[in-house]
Amino acid sequence: LAEKVVGIGRRPQSLRIARRVGAVDVTTTHLPRGVQGAELIVVCTPVGRIAQDVLAAAAVCERTALLTDAGSTKAQLVAELDGALDDAVRFVGSHPLAGSERSGPSQARADLFAGRVVVVTPTPRTAPRDVKAIGAFWTALGARVVQMSPQAHDRALAFTSHLPHLVASALAGGLPGEYARFAASGFRDITRVASSDPELWRQIFVSNRREVLRSLESFRTTFDALEAALRSGDDARLLELLTQARRNRDALGT
Amino acid sequence: LAEKVVGIGRRPQSLRIARRVGAVDVTTTHLPRGVQGAELIVVCTPVGRIAQDVLAAAAVCERTALLTDAGSTKAQLVAELDGALDDAVRFVGSHPLAGSERSGPSQARADLFAGRVVVVTPTPRTAPRDVKAIGAFWTALGARVVQMSPQAHDRALAFTSHLPHLVASALAGGLPGEYARFAASGFRDITRVASSDPELWRQIFVSNRREVLRSLESFRTTFDALEAALRSGDDARLLELLTQARRNRDALGT
Repeated sequence: LAEKVVGIGRRPQSLRIARRVGAVDVTTTHLPRGVQGAELIVVCTPVGRIAQDVLAAAAVCERTALLTDAGSTKAQLVAELDGALDDAVRFVGSHPLAGSERSGPSQARADLFAGRVVVVTPTPRTAPRDVKAIGAFWTALGARVVQMSPQAHDRALAFTSHLPHLVASALAGGLPGEYARFAASGFRDITRVASSDPELWRQIFVSNRREVLRSLESFRTTFDALEAALRSGDDARLLELLTQARRNRDALGT
Repeated sequence: LAEKVVGIGRRPQSLRIARRVGAVDVTTTHLPRGVQGAELIVVCTPVGRIAQDVLAAAAVCERTALLTDAGSTKAQLVAELDGALDDAVRFVGSHPLAGSERSGPSQARADLFAGRVVVVTPTPRTAPRDVKAIGAFWTALGARVVQMSPQAHDRALAFTSHLPHLVASALAGGLPGEYARFAASGFRDITRVASSDPELWRQIFVSNRREVLRSLESFRTTFDALEAALRSGDDARLLELLTQARRNRDALGT
């Protein structure tokens, strides 16, 4: 797919691991040198600094280079780039739904994107041929590409990623220490994402504050209904709610 | 460990599968015939009917037989058996923390209890030698045995099993259908238990209503704190809560 993959980063130790696992061919800590001659630039920094890194790369890369990112939220990024980015710069936002609680180059996997959804988020200023090119890149890595607006992306991901993460963190954070030995596979599965990098996720929550707060309200409605049915002894309603939850979950597959 | 394992059930089809997978040696739908000559009787029915099944088995089994169960809640069972069970009957409650969202004999695994915690819940009426015998049974299957009162068990499991299950069901039940395609591995992990049998879990929730409602209050406190930090823009507090959650989760292992 690529003639040469250049890894650009701040920490020589991470770059060394990235080379060793074969994620990249060569590495540098010097952005201008790293992007020189690049046809495609993928910015994979935490959401809080993607915009500044895109701007920095755009200022020194080839005029024909295509830029994208891998951030978990999109609307704030677009807002930050709007006006700041030269109209000639070819940027299209991406979000590969392929993360886990692990991070760093030692967790690299060649098949990370196989069968996964990648959301590509064009805006009115995006050229259709650039959207097509970015889509072709992810497709070549085995992903299924879905196109939507940054706003629609952030609304959906609040429900499927950010809200569940906050809930998992509340469960893990609220577990009394003396009960830890009774946390079996169910609890471990439910709270696994709470092991993710806290600062990375703080940035994700903050960058999608409005939609996350909206999804929390929606969660409270369902949660309150379950609690009310249990509290009032409405067994038929409780069973109905659990059955609806099972139906939704079963529809997702394993 | 056992000379002969007899599977007693209502559905010939399930008993056939249990024989085929080697979970049992012989089967019957006739309780009195099934428990005849048994030294150990393990009642594995849904929590709502364990008490009646223990009573039915106790009425027809050998006087020397030891009885236990595998129910997810314990205090209600003890209350139901108190007074109803003859003092000569040797019953000790058990809860193996080894479930999953799957059920039925086709999911049988020889190593199901290896390395898992089994809580054994003696009461003032339980003879110490019976507690020891039941503990030895689970230990022989590879489990780590923990002794506690039925009440302490129900309080702990409300936090580590029942509350997380209710939360997972609320997340799955509240997922707007149009967002299902964006539910990646994180969402699937978190909501996996919501695929469990709804009626089985309705009975678990109802039989531990008081402790489950208490654990919900505790969850709300942590959840509200996360929401307040996000809403008010208190980034330091948000990071602190996420960091505490990660510390708790990391302590549990993978």
